[in-house]
Amino acid sequence: MPAHSPVTVLGLGPMGQAMARTLMQTGHPVTVWNRTPGRADDLVAAGAHLAATPSEAVAASDLIILSLTDYQAMWDILGGATASLRGRTLANLSSDTPDRSREAAAWAAGHGAAFLTGGVMVPAPMVGTASAYAYYSGPSEVMDRHSGTLARIGTPRYLGEDPGLAQLMYLANLDVFLTTLSSLTHAVALLQSAGLKASDVFPELMPTLAGIPAMLEAGESPAAQIDAGEHPGDLSTATMMGATADHIVEASEKAGIDLALPRAVQRHYRRAVRDGHGGDNWTRIIDGIRTPHPDA
Amino acid sequence: MPAHSPVTVLGLGPMGQAMARTLMQTGHPVTVWNRTPGRADDLVAAGAHLAATPSEAVAASDLIILSLTDYQAMWDILGGATASLRGRTLANLSSDTPDRSREAAAWAAGHGAAFLTGGVMVPAPMVGTASAYAYYSGPSEVMDRHSGTLARIGTPRYLGEDPGLAQLMYLANLDVFLTTLSSLTHAVALLQSAGLKASDVFPELMPTLAGIPAMLEAGESPAAQIDAGEHPGDLSTATMMGATADHIVEASEKAGIDLALPRAVQRHYRRAVRDGHGGDNWTRIIDGIRTPHPDA
Ligand SMILES: NC(=O)c1ccc[n+]([C@@H]2O[C@H](COP(=O)([O-])OP(=O)(O)OC[C@H]3O[C@@H](n4cnc5c(N)ncnc54)[C@H](OP(=O)(O)O)[C@@H]3O)[C@@H](O)[C@H]2O)c1
Ligand SMILES: NC(=O)c1ccc[n+]([C@@H]2O[C@H](COP(=O)([O-])OP(=O)(O)OC[C@H]3O[C@@H](n4cnc5c(N)ncnc54)[C@H](OP(=O)(O)O)[C@@H]3O)[C@@H](O)[C@H]2O)c1
Repeated sequence: MPAHSPVTVLGLGPMGQAMARTLMQTGHPVTVWNRTPGRADDLVAAGAHLAATPSEAVAASDLIILSLTDYQAMWDILGGATASLRGRTLANLSSDTPDRSREAAAWAAGHGAAFLTGGVMVPAPMVGTASAYAYYSGPSEVMDRHSGTLARIGTPRYLGEDPGLAQLMYLANLDVFLTTLSSLTHAVALLQSAGLKASDVFPELMPTLAGIPAMLEAGESPAAQIDAGEHPGDLSTATMMGATADHIVEASEKAGIDLALPRAVQRHYRRAVRDGHGGDNWTRIIDGIRTPHPDA
Repeated sequence: MPAHSPVTVLGLGPMGQAMARTLMQTGHPVTVWNRTPGRADDLVAAGAHLAATPSEAVAASDLIILSLTDYQAMWDILGGATASLRGRTLANLSSDTPDRSREAAAWAAGHGAAFLTGGVMVPAPMVGTASAYAYYSGPSEVMDRHSGTLARIGTPRYLGEDPGLAQLMYLANLDVFLTTLSSLTHAVALLQSAGLKASDVFPELMPTLAGIPAMLEAGESPAAQIDAGEHPGDLSTATMMGATADHIVEASEKAGIDLALPRAVQRHYRRAVRDGHGGDNWTRIIDGIRTPHPDA
């Protein structure tokens, strides 16, 4: 691909806008289309071409980047424009399941288009910065062809041919991300129940969160314990962590706030203790997470 | 208190052992007692005095630190030794609910003892290091009297007179800590379902976790949004995050792993969307967390 090859961006939410802007700033001619056309105004003012139809948008570039709420939105947009797809590459950087990414790759192939699955691993304001990166999977020669352009968005991390792989890696990371944000919000709600302000307690919660990677990378090596299936409880035990999980549920109940989240965590420890592993390290919860009881 | 005043440590799990060792290393005469006496062996070899009974342990020092699985363990240990408590200070650094800490302070007062609630905010191997800190609440003059000794364990962060306050702050932090560890383990299980190894995927998940504090401290200011009750969705929306939460549940279902955790997160977003706030920032989930529906 030439250094400044044209790119089409379908979907102009915060992420699509950030990607289109970054591509334009790095010298690519950018064509955009969005269901709600007004969202293209700023980009058009900055020099983007607004296509009148999805077909026209697809026809404008070899590489079509999709940034949509889910994959159904792609089918809604391109379902009537399949004739334009032949010879193009669709890089769908939207969230969905690995199965849907595989289905989409087959669908694209049926219309003569190549398909890359992508997952952008930074928030919209960080697109195009040095710390931005994105997972990709799909045919390696397609990846090679477009990696220079896609690198404008963030460093590409190619995971392999299976179109589901980048999506699975994206979801696993978002699992950590969304659950952690929910836990932070839950902790704030717990402290608010005692009359404290979010802006006063956030700085108290941040060091705990920030300290987790260092703690995990130090002594314990939880990943090695999980791979080995051995979970020595020398530094902390499932019984001890489970007792604290119980206290969090009880305090949340008293505060009248959401119980589903702390109960899900409590259940991980109860299961390990019930299975006779209370003296093991917390990493033992992996067993129950992998083989949940039918009621879970 | 003299610089090297005697200290008693009740409870010799990983945390109690670390605290006793640190106190000895900083020159304090240390008396220990543990239900299972063998756990004192290493400390005794290093110079600690092993008391024969809880009463003898309490009588040995003005300051008695408790490091137990929960508060019931304190009552189990000291229930027959209440006569020894008069004039002593109990610093209970064990996990439990704020109400139980308040109850314990009243119980201690009934036996003529002062009471401090504490929560150590670092894992056992980090006790006594520069980054160690611990929350305390209780009478300020009692705190002042013992803060020099308690500072050996980690920097004291005194929160106020209410004995429940340090416990609540501890639990809120552990809420974030335990939930995040569960999410990491859940993400590993999801990736293992595709044949990946924990030690290969852990390094992929760490940057996401490590990046959250910086992301939160940058642009968005979620704490300010929560305090203001205003949640502009310019950079990301509850609808978008909720769609990804749906995809995580669906992929977890396909993988056959625990659904309780991702469903708890999904529920936070569904509630915000159902209440008409899908276009708001993710911080809007605080409303539903604070006022859960009865089924939660
Ligand atoms: N925002 C971030 O920081 C971020 C970070 C990493 C990854 N992502 C991922 O990037 C993707 C886009 O995120 P975003 O925040 O920009 O997304 P968003 O707010 O969910 O909106 C994305 C776009 O999807 C379009 N859309 C949704 N349903 C549609 C349908 N049925 N037909 C046609 N168009 C439809 C919207 O069109 P309208 O404008 O007409 O509604 C909009 O252009 C998502 O998959 C998200 O998970 C986002
Ligand atoms: N480990 C950490 O990294 C860490 C970090 C921060 C905070 N904490 C908190 O520190 C406290 C202690 O943690 P840990 O990891 O050392 O604890 P642990 O494994 O829960 O054990 C602590 C001690 O509790 C005693 N105990 C439990 N039930 C008892 C009962 N009914 N009667 C008498 N003794 C009883 C045990 O005695 P036996 O030896 O006889 O069983 C043991 O000495 C906990 O509240 C924990 O939440 C721990």
